[in-house]
Amino acid sequence: MTGAQAKGKIMHHTLGDGDYGAFRTMSEKVSCFVANIETTAEGERAQVIDHAIRECVIQRRPVYIYIPIDLLMAKIDGASLNKQIDLERPYDQRSGDQAVHAVLSRLYSAKRPAILVDQGARSFGVSGTGFRAQNETLTHIQALRQVREFVTKTGLPTFVTVMGKSNVDESLPNFCGVYQGTSSSPKVKEHFEASDVVLGIGIIPSDYNTGGFTGKSVSVKVKVQGSLTVVEDSQYSGISMSRVLDELTNKIEKKPGWNELAIPSVKDQHVTSTALESSETITHSWLWSHISSWLQSEDVIITETGTSNFGIAMTELPRNTQVIAQWLWGSIGYATGACEGAAVAAKELGMNRTVLFTGDGSFQLTATALSKCLLCHAGGSPYSSRTGTMLRHGLTPIIFIICNKGFTIERYVHGWEASYNDIMPWKYTHLPEAFGAANDKYQTHQVKTKAQFRHLLQSNEFTKPTRLQVR
Amino acid sequence: MTGAQAKGKIMHHTLGDGDYGAFRTMSEKVSCFVANIETTAEGERAQVIDHAIRECVIQRRPVYIYIPIDLLMAKIDGASLNKQIDLERPYDQRSGDQAVHAVLSRLYSAKRPAILVDQGARSFGVSGTGFRAQNETLTHIQALRQVREFVTKTGLPTFVTVMGKSNVDESLPNFCGVYQGTSSSPKVKEHFEASDVVLGIGIIPSDYNTGGFTGKSVSVKVKVQGSLTVVEDSQYSGISMSRVLDELTNKIEKKPGWNELAIPSVKDQHVTSTALESSETITHSWLWSHISSWLQSEDVIITETGTSNFGIAMTELPRNTQVIAQWLWGSIGYATGACEGAAVAAKELGMNRTVLFTGDGSFQLTATALSKCLLCHAGGSPYSSRTGTMLRHGLTPIIFIICNKGFTIERYVHGWEASYNDIMPWKYTHLPEAFGAANDKYQTHQVKTKAQFRHLLQSNEFTKPTRLQVR
Repeated sequence: MTGAQAKGKIMHHTLGDGDYGAFRTMSEKVSCFVANIETTAEGERAQVIDHAIRECVIQRRPVYIYIPIDLLMAKIDGASLNKQIDLERPYDQRSGDQAVHAVLSRLYSAKRPAILVDQGARSFGVSGTGFRAQNETLTHIQALRQVREFVTKTGLPTFVTVMGKSNVDESLPNFCGVYQGTSSSPKVKEHFEASDVVLGIGIIPSDYNTGGFTGKSVSVKVKVQGSLTVVEDSQYSGISMSRVLDELTNKIEKKPGWNELAIPSVKDQHVTSTALESSETITHSWLWSHISSWLQSEDVIITETGTSNFGIAMTELPRNTQVIAQWLWGSIGYATGACEGAAVAAKELGMNRTVLFTGDGSFQLTATALSKCLLCHAGGSPYSSRTGTMLRHGLTPIIFIICNKGFTIERYVHGWEASYNDIMPWKYTHLPEAFGAANDKYQTHQVKTKAQFRHLLQSNEFTKPTRLQVR
Repeated sequence: MTGAQAKGKIMHHTLGDGDYGAFRTMSEKVSCFVANIETTAEGERAQVIDHAIRECVIQRRPVYIYIPIDLLMAKIDGASLNKQIDLERPYDQRSGDQAVHAVLSRLYSAKRPAILVDQGARSFGVSGTGFRAQNETLTHIQALRQVREFVTKTGLPTFVTVMGKSNVDESLPNFCGVYQGTSSSPKVKEHFEASDVVLGIGIIPSDYNTGGFTGKSVSVKVKVQGSLTVVEDSQYSGISMSRVLDELTNKIEKKPGWNELAIPSVKDQHVTSTALESSETITHSWLWSHISSWLQSEDVIITETGTSNFGIAMTELPRNTQVIAQWLWGSIGYATGACEGAAVAAKELGMNRTVLFTGDGSFQLTATALSKCLLCHAGGSPYSSRTGTMLRHGLTPIIFIICNKGFTIERYVHGWEASYNDIMPWKYTHLPEAFGAANDKYQTHQVKTKAQFRHLLQSNEFTKPTRLQVR
């Protein structure tokens, strides 16, 4: 039956009210563009789909393409397939020149300028050709290159937010740590708040990212955003972050005195093992100080909405690592699925290890990502066999499940003894076998003491994985 | 921070655009009523919430109640707590009298009238006090009582749709089987299509339910629906199905000849084991003919979008069983979650066994329902500890996982050899242990031959479960 014949009929996979557009309408709230191929003139269908792809890439947000089933096999003009979709962000040269001038003037007039790099630097900080990066170099690393060049040339004290963690090379001498309002470590807070002008890059002033709307990052007044630059009361629009950043790097000149600005020692903000209690119980502060030295360059690290998000924020990172954490939407269970996707990408891009830190409660929500199958109706696409599952596709992430028998953060919020914060005592190390993994395709470890954990981190097989690892 | 203070700020668990109403707006498409407590006058909040609850019950559809965080603790008038919410459906007596008269006239003028009972008979066929049924008798059984009384009094040939399966007591002498257009068994089709007037009860003319819009049930012209009765071109609104059905039962008089109408033998439409091949491989037709005699009165049976939905349709059911299957939305993975909920309800209502039939591919999508935890932010509600998980709450469903190594129905649709129809070879019998079940809380069985399966069905421990069972 074609879509036209079905019109108004009650089909399965619908709400039964004859309205096939219900989810298209609902998706408008979460999409930056909705392409309705049903109402698009026949000659314009290819163009509208290309436009949707462009908006998705440019705006870094979902789009929704609605294709009625009877148009799935409709022929369209294939000419546009020969033309690469223009993924260059618009750049209004006049607006850009004014913005760069305004930013530089404001920095030059400051006594203690500083830089704050946030999540937007990753989302938008790629060049227009970033999407070809697959065959060249990692998109993220390329974005980091631009930030690194700017930060290096200025030598200015440079901070990141928790959402911006890993967006600045932490080995740079002017990297100052993570600023998060009143939740920051004291020295970072002192240095950041002593600055008189903060240049923000890709600022997202959300609750967690600003330490609950406290401190100075709540109202950063000079900022380079995705397609907009703001200098106090002036807004310069139609200009891409990437190009503004390159222009700033080209034009900026170090001022006398910038080199003398105090930089807090990054080491100070991280908990060091010497400062820790002597019990053999593994605590968070002990854990993260040991993880720091175990991490390697070009690792992809995924942390979960929970203790591991906070843990990674206080962990010193090697160069060119990438942290993936979902601070804004904050849905637990995300990290295990994200690990699956990241491991696929890391393999494709030749990155180093993919490492997941999650909690037992969060892990239980999406544990089947270890093995689950992907039902792909579209079929045939090269991604259908690549996307889906860790075991099935021979991915080798290292998964740390931090077990504290329930939703510990939720216990602090409400119901310390409440049964709804309890979880079932899974045997996590039994899962790969139950999920059908061959014996030589995974390795599991259970560690309960600091000595066991230290020993594990020193083991060569664990550190350079050829199999999926569940701790 | 209160909602008012947060206004426009970027909070976690939002889309980061300062709009806290995005999901309220999106939910309008899937809710029959949206209560926006933010814009409701202070004195009317209790009333609006009560109204939402009423609409949810009356219309049997979801409602959405939007309460900003700063109003969660706002005091409201508690007086309405002393007044039971009116859950009686409206009944326009004049419209009702006309409807009953019209239905009876049409039936009396027919030569071969028949009855077709569909899903709506379950959704709407309860009396206004149905929600108190928890302490009296099962809502569903009560609805069945009304249908049964009507069907019994008329003695007319009575059919069900696949979605209406279990809505008519199959031991009634005038029960004729499942009608599904051209997909029906030949004798059922012949008898149903020989009728000249069909009275439908709770008709949903969806694709699967009508055998792909074939045959006679597509356009049933006399029907008693949730709040509407239709007799050819006349519609009678504002009248509840339950009351119309009771009035019809009271007033209808058997016409001469109704007793002589041919009734196909229900046995004929079910595949019987004698008709089956001699191989030891378990086939679907063999399986369901054996399941039929194993099922017991007051069992709750859940089947999945896949082979088991089709299987149960051809399986003869004992009295007062209830089949739960999701033919319309058709999302695989539903059945395992539904089994969890049904097992909680069955326990509360003192029903017999809860039995799930699912496929390996479908089961993998929601397998953690066996054990998963429920994170309940609201806390404290009596349901937070009751909802959630089979193992955790000592539920004892019997779970049949029909293993055919992938998405077999999808293979028929597209891609017989395609890898996207493959699944991981889980060790299903290992799952309860991995999910933390104590040894005495579950039992697992794996059967591969007809002999093994027959033996299992005869085992007492399996048939009267005190533990969770995974086949």
